[in-house]
Amino acid sequence: MEWKWEFSRTARRVKSSAIRDLLKLTQQPDIISFAGGLPAPELFPVEEIGEAGDYVLKHEGQYALQYSTTEGYRLLRRFLAKRMTQKGMAVDEDEILITGGSQQGLDLLGRLFLEEGDWIVSAQPTYVGAIQAFSAYGVNFHTVPLDKDGIKVELIEEAVKEKKPKFIYVIPTFQNPGGVTLSLERRRNLVEIARRRQVPIVEDDPYSELRYEGEDLPTLKALGGEVVILLGTFSKIVSPGLRLAWIAGPQEVIEKLIKLKQGADLHTNTFTQYILYQFLKGGGLDRHLKVLRQEYGQRRRVMLEALRENFPPKVKWTTPQGGLFLWVELPPGVDASALLPEVVKEKVAYVPGSAFYPNGGGENTLRLNFSNASPQLIREGMKRLAKVFSAKIP
Amino acid sequence: MEWKWEFSRTARRVKSSAIRDLLKLTQQPDIISFAGGLPAPELFPVEEIGEAGDYVLKHEGQYALQYSTTEGYRLLRRFLAKRMTQKGMAVDEDEILITGGSQQGLDLLGRLFLEEGDWIVSAQPTYVGAIQAFSAYGVNFHTVPLDKDGIKVELIEEAVKEKKPKFIYVIPTFQNPGGVTLSLERRRNLVEIARRRQVPIVEDDPYSELRYEGEDLPTLKALGGEVVILLGTFSKIVSPGLRLAWIAGPQEVIEKLIKLKQGADLHTNTFTQYILYQFLKGGGLDRHLKVLRQEYGQRRRVMLEALRENFPPKVKWTTPQGGLFLWVELPPGVDASALLPEVVKEKVAYVPGSAFYPNGGGENTLRLNFSNASPQLIREGMKRLAKVFSAKIP
Repeated sequence: MEWKWEFSRTARRVKSSAIRDLLKLTQQPDIISFAGGLPAPELFPVEEIGEAGDYVLKHEGQYALQYSTTEGYRLLRRFLAKRMTQKGMAVDEDEILITGGSQQGLDLLGRLFLEEGDWIVSAQPTYVGAIQAFSAYGVNFHTVPLDKDGIKVELIEEAVKEKKPKFIYVIPTFQNPGGVTLSLERRRNLVEIARRRQVPIVEDDPYSELRYEGEDLPTLKALGGEVVILLGTFSKIVSPGLRLAWIAGPQEVIEKLIKLKQGADLHTNTFTQYILYQFLKGGGLDRHLKVLRQEYGQRRRVMLEALRENFPPKVKWTTPQGGLFLWVELPPGVDASALLPEVVKEKVAYVPGSAFYPNGGGENTLRLNFSNASPQLIREGMKRLAKVFSAKIP
Repeated sequence: MEWKWEFSRTARRVKSSAIRDLLKLTQQPDIISFAGGLPAPELFPVEEIGEAGDYVLKHEGQYALQYSTTEGYRLLRRFLAKRMTQKGMAVDEDEILITGGSQQGLDLLGRLFLEEGDWIVSAQPTYVGAIQAFSAYGVNFHTVPLDKDGIKVELIEEAVKEKKPKFIYVIPTFQNPGGVTLSLERRRNLVEIARRRQVPIVEDDPYSELRYEGEDLPTLKALGGEVVILLGTFSKIVSPGLRLAWIAGPQEVIEKLIKLKQGADLHTNTFTQYILYQFLKGGGLDRHLKVLRQEYGQRRRVMLEALRENFPPKVKWTTPQGGLFLWVELPPGVDASALLPEVVKEKVAYVPGSAFYPNGGGENTLRLNFSNASPQLIREGMKRLAKVFSAKIP
C-alpha cells in the first residue's frame, strides 16, 4: 500500500528553488566560491574560543550543560544591552532575546506578526533568508528598489498607505545583497514614516561592525526607539557555528517572542552562550573585529581592483564601505543564472541576483562575496570570472 | 502617542499559563524541586565534553565554527542511523534530521502537518511541551486516558475514524508525565491502527535508554517502519545545554522538514554537533548511560520507598521502570495546584498534573521528578511533602 502524506499549507508552500539547485553546482571542493556569505574560517578565533570553553567547563559546567531560560543567558543579554547603549540605542537587558542565529529571529518575527495574505515592505533585492522565512507564512512582498543610498525611502509611505504592511524589513547598513548603505537623511525619513503610519521597522543589522571606510551612521533603532525591532548576530563577527544572535525590541514584543520561542525550541544553546559570554567578557570581540576589518577590507579592495581592471566596460558594481558583499549588474538581457554553469566550469561561483528578488526579476544581476576567499584566490577567481564575462558579454 | 502592536493569531493564542506562574514560585535556590525534568547536573560528563571540545577545536575548528548543512552533521547522523539500526529500526542517515532539541522537532512537525482547527490524538496526561508546540498551530486535542500499560490503544481507532487527526502523538516508554510504558501488545495494535487508518504516529522517545528494571521493548518505529516518525534526544542522556536531538522518519518527511527548518533557523549548532559526535565516537555515551542508570535507578528507589513509608494511604502513584518521572494521584476533590503554595512554604515543589491535560482536568494529580535531586535530598523533600499531604488529606 502506498502511503500518502498530507502536509500543511505551510509545508506545501516551501518548494525546492531553482537557485538552490544551481548553487549545488557550486559546492565543489576545488571551486573559488564568491557565492556563500561565509566568514573566513582561517580567521575564526579558535584559540580564544578554546580558552573560553575550558574556563566555562571548569567553573560553570553544571550550568553551561543544563537547561536554561528561554530569553537567554542574563550576562550575555546584559553585555549586549550595554554595548547597544554605547552605540546610542537605549536598550535594557529585558528588551533582548537571544536566538539561535538571526534566521530564527526572522522566523519568530514572522510568527509574531504575519498571517497568510498579509503584506510586508522590503527592498528589492533583499536577503534571501528573509524571503524564505517570511514566505513560509504566506505573505506578499511589496518591494522597493535600492540605489547607492539604500532603499528608496520616498517610495515607502505610499506603499504603506496602500498595502497596510505588518512591518518594513530593511538591512540599512552594507545591505545584503546590494552592499549599499542607507543615508542618514533616508534613515530619519524612514523612522518618521514608521511613526506616522504606525508600522514597525524590522532592522536587520548583521554587518554594521564590519566597516572598512567612512563614518558609522546611527542605526534605525538609535533613531526610532520603540518603533524599531533590531536583529543582531555574532555569525559574521565571531562564528556562525555557535548559532548566536539576538533580537532587541520593546518589552511587549520581547515578552511575546519569548513565549513563541519557548514553543519553538525551549531556549538557545546554553553551552555556546556561556562560551561566547566568556569570550566577550575578556575583550575578545574588539580584538577580533580589528583583525576582521583589516582582512576583509583588504579582500574588498582586491575584488574592486579586479573588477576595475579586468571586467568588460558594460558591467557595473556597487562599492560597499563594509560588510561581505558587492552587487554586480550585467548589461540588460544577459542572464546571470544562464551564465553560472559556464562560470562553474572555470571553477568559480556567484549567486545569481534573481535569488534576492521576492517577486521575480534581477536576471542580469549577481552577488559576489569577498570575505570567504583569500586575496590570492579572489584575484584568481575574478580573473576566471572576467574571462567568461568578456567572452559572453558583447 | 501610544503604540499599539498588532500580533498574529498565533501570537495571540500563546498566553501566559497559570501553571507557569505557579512554577515561578518553585524557582528558589533553597527549594528541593521535584518539579522540573532536569538531569542531575553533578553527573554531566564535563571532563569528557571538555576533551571532545579540545579535540574539535584543535583539529576541526574551521569546520566546527562555520555554517553547516540544515540536515545536520553527516557523521552524527550516521552514528544515529547505526545505533537505531542496532535497536531494530532500519533507518538510513538520510532519514535523520538533527534538531535544536526535541522541542524544535515537535514544532517542525506542527509546521509540517498542522492547520488551525485540525485534530491530533494524544494521551491525557501528556508532555506539556508538546501541548505548547502543537497548540501554537491552533489545533484540537482528542485525548485518550492512560493506565499502567500506557495509552488505552483500544480507544484510539474510534477517535481516528471520528476526528480524522493529522497524527497520533505518544510517548510509549516511561511516559512523561505518567511514568508508564506501553505494553508490547498495545504497541502492535497501535501500529496496526495507524496503518489501517493511514494516520502517522509521532513517537516521542527521550527516555528509553534510561531503563532501571525490566526488559527493553521494541519502539513503535521498530514495529511500524514508515508510519512512525521518531523523536530522539541527547538532552536526558548527555546534556540538554548542548541542544541536540533528532527526528527519524521517511525520506519524504525528512526532506520537507529540512526545508522548513532552513527557514526556521538555517541549521543546528555546528560546534556542539562536532563535540557531541567526538564524545559519541569515543564510546562516551554507553559509559555515561551506565552511570545514569545506576544513579537515577537509586533515586527512583528512594522516592518510591518514601512514598510507601510516609504518604497517606489514599494517595496512589505509578511505578516507572525507567525515565525521570512518576505520577501521583491524590484523592478526588484534593487540588494539587491549591496545595502547591503550602508545599513551597516547606521548600519543596512538584508540577500540578493539570499542566499535562490539554483539555483541562487532572486537578488531583501531580508529577514528581527523581533525576535532579540527590538521594538525600529526595528523602528530605519527600518527608516534607508527606507532612503537608498528611495534614491536608483526610
